[in-house]
Amino acid sequence: MSEPIQAMLDNLRADGALVHNITNYVTVNDCANILLACGASPIMADAVEEVAEITALCSGLNINIGTLNSRTVEAMILAGKKANALGKPVLLDPVGVGASALRTDTANQLLATIKFRVIRGNISEIKTLAKGFGTTQGVDAGAEDAVTEATMADTVAFLKDFALKTGAVVVVTGARDIVTDGTKVYVVDNGHPMMAKVTGTGCMLSAMMTAFVCANEAEPLTAALAAVTAMGLAGELAYEKIHTLGLGNASYRHLIIDNICLMDGELLARKAKVTHYA
Amino acid sequence: MSEPIQAMLDNLRADGALVHNITNYVTVNDCANILLACGASPIMADAVEEVAEITALCSGLNINIGTLNSRTVEAMILAGKKANALGKPVLLDPVGVGASALRTDTANQLLATIKFRVIRGNISEIKTLAKGFGTTQGVDAGAEDAVTEATMADTVAFLKDFALKTGAVVVVTGARDIVTDGTKVYVVDNGHPMMAKVTGTGCMLSAMMTAFVCANEAEPLTAALAAVTAMGLAGELAYEKIHTLGLGNASYRHLIIDNICLMDGELLARKAKVTHYA
Amino acid sequence: MSEPIQAMLDNLRADGALVHNITNYVTVNDCANILLACGASPIMADAVEEVAEITALCSGLNINIGTLNSRTVEAMILAGKKANALGKPVLLDPVGVGASALRTDTANQLLATIKFRVIRGNISEIKTLAKGFGTTQGVDAGAEDAVTEATMADTVAFLKDFALKTGAVVVVTGARDIVTDGTKVYVVDNGHPMMAKVTGTGCMLSAMMTAFVCANEAEPLTAALAAVTAMGLAGELAYEKIHTLGLGNASYRHLIIDNICLMDGELLARKAKVTHYA
Repeated sequence: MSEPIQAMLDNLRADGALVHNITNYVTVNDCANILLACGASPIMADAVEEVAEITALCSGLNINIGTLNSRTVEAMILAGKKANALGKPVLLDPVGVGASALRTDTANQLLATIKFRVIRGNISEIKTLAKGFGTTQGVDAGAEDAVTEATMADTVAFLKDFALKTGAVVVVTGARDIVTDGTKVYVVDNGHPMMAKVTGTGCMLSAMMTAFVCANEAEPLTAALAAVTAMGLAGELAYEKIHTLGLGNASYRHLIIDNICLMDGELLARKAKVTHYA
Repeated sequence: MSEPIQAMLDNLRADGALVHNITNYVTVNDCANILLACGASPIMADAVEEVAEITALCSGLNINIGTLNSRTVEAMILAGKKANALGKPVLLDPVGVGASALRTDTANQLLATIKFRVIRGNISEIKTLAKGFGTTQGVDAGAEDAVTEATMADTVAFLKDFALKTGAVVVVTGARDIVTDGTKVYVVDNGHPMMAKVTGTGCMLSAMMTAFVCANEAEPLTAALAAVTAMGLAGELAYEKIHTLGLGNASYRHLIIDNICLMDGELLARKAKVTHYA
Repeated sequence: MSEPIQAMLDNLRADGALVHNITNYVTVNDCANILLACGASPIMADAVEEVAEITALCSGLNINIGTLNSRTVEAMILAGKKANALGKPVLLDPVGVGASALRTDTANQLLATIKFRVIRGNISEIKTLAKGFGTTQGVDAGAEDAVTEATMADTVAFLKDFALKTGAVVVVTGARDIVTDGTKVYVVDNGHPMMAKVTGTGCMLSAMMTAFVCANEAEPLTAALAAVTAMGLAGELAYEKIHTLGLGNASYRHLIIDNICLMDGELLARKAKVTHYA
């Protein structure tokens, strides 16, 4: 998979992508800076009066329910419908789904109303969407849902089903990342456990993944895979730096973004730890 | 106080704490990252439809009125009542109280409706809450309110009264920090003046203090004291680094969080400058 | 212009300025930290119930429509009117104007209702305000609007007209920055192209410019010029550092703020690349 992954990043750097984000106010600055880091441009807009127009200007739409409220949920639906009407890619990041009825109901409403090109979350979030239950702990995955060797086959099976049912590329991130379109399945082993100590690594990945998919519209599966791999690799490279220099999680946060900024397709392809799951 | 302080951080690192934050959008990312740095996990949620459910999932609740509006004030009250009903600790950070009628009225309404385990602010904010007036300058303490040797005895007296009246541990942070439950009083001399050049050091401390109190439920006074000391120590250690490297306030911001991330109970206890005020 | 520019920063460091910001949630933390870096203090407040009171406490008001919604637009108008009534400076940063009817209508409503001391944006935003059309690409200037040698004379002419019409100092930032009060025109060649890879360099500049104008009320043109020059210089100095150390855009972001924090009037004056445009 090295060559196709390399092309995904090279295309994004060459063509750019303007990504409309309706996202949470916790990690929004990091989402904007990682979009700039990977060669894309961000726009954040959540007023119901303008979201359809803004989406129409953009290459694609990233919907993240991290700090949703009734006003922004309405904006998500308006923007998502517009993106669908114009055939532009939409990504869903169902942050904390399962932690409240509002989150679960909103995510289900979004799935019923909008056709997503990609759905990305942790295992508990995706399980909640796909099966109706998960063991989410706030915005983190519950320990009971951890993907292990023993549960891998079952996990892959329900992820494939969920991808086929939604027509979306489904991405689960965690210790191992899984990417599937319902037919092909890839496992990514890039990344570092310290990434869990930085708020918003998932949000950043979703924003960046939207850009990868926008710049590679014909290949959403490979584009999503490349984005996951790039994020994991940035986490590895940034960890080397904080480990050497004796730094903590706040420095790690911006060194992850820095490493996306400095990454080219060749480096990504060379360091990718991607397996075709058979 | 070294040994008990050490245990507070060790307990937090061992047990974790999931903290629900209804806080301002200025410093929210730093609050999330400092919670991760100290061994806790953050969740931010302010929709009235979900805050009670989110609080029920969490170990405790951090209410910060830094960028309040009518929607989020309603959410604060709903979440606070739920936390009270479930016996979970709630902290109040009355940012900028005294700067507008909305802030003062809201803080008073919160005090009348919710039982707080901890109330933390600068001297002007706490004076406004306790006495009905202060000389707040926006979100900073007014110069006239500064705690000096001359005013120390009077300050301690009204803080003790306020702690007894509210049943909360009261924490005033500034050049010297004061922590009291109405009976015992501690003064902390850790910290560095440069901390005033970073937005949100108070907000970060409040978020982290909630985590300390959650992980040490039986000892809110010592837990709050440990959090104040840890923040001050992180400010000292980070200042050494920016001074050596010739860096400014933005680097200082993340090095403060880094130093919380790297701190263990032993270092905290060894470097604590805590006095029992008699 | 070196001496007057130096005095602007020296005055701000000596006197401070408390700046009320009604701004977007993407870059708000950076706006707060750059205000602290330059010697000012920030307060962010956008509740309609309190904005007039908050503005009354402050030295001036910074209005940025980056993530506007109906609630915050109402707050902008209330705060702007109050600032006008009290004779305090108000700055407008019309982020993304032209990208949606909401943004364009809001900016026009603000211009019709509030008298601004300064209006700052990229060339597409200012063209949209001044001429009713531009080629904005989301929140970035459109390529067709780029200020080149060939278009410089025409650009300066409409900026002078717009400044005279509004009574505001008009500032356009880009590869070259232009500052005019309708009579005098200055061009600033400080800065670095990498600044476009950091979200919010424009927002940060607007916040800081409000502080410069507050601390130098009699000289808004020179104050705005000094702020633009300081931002550009910080971008140059920070770029040297990331280039030497092999860092990316996230490190660049905080090193820009650090360099404002470390800058004094003498350095600013010595490194300024300011031309009086004749």
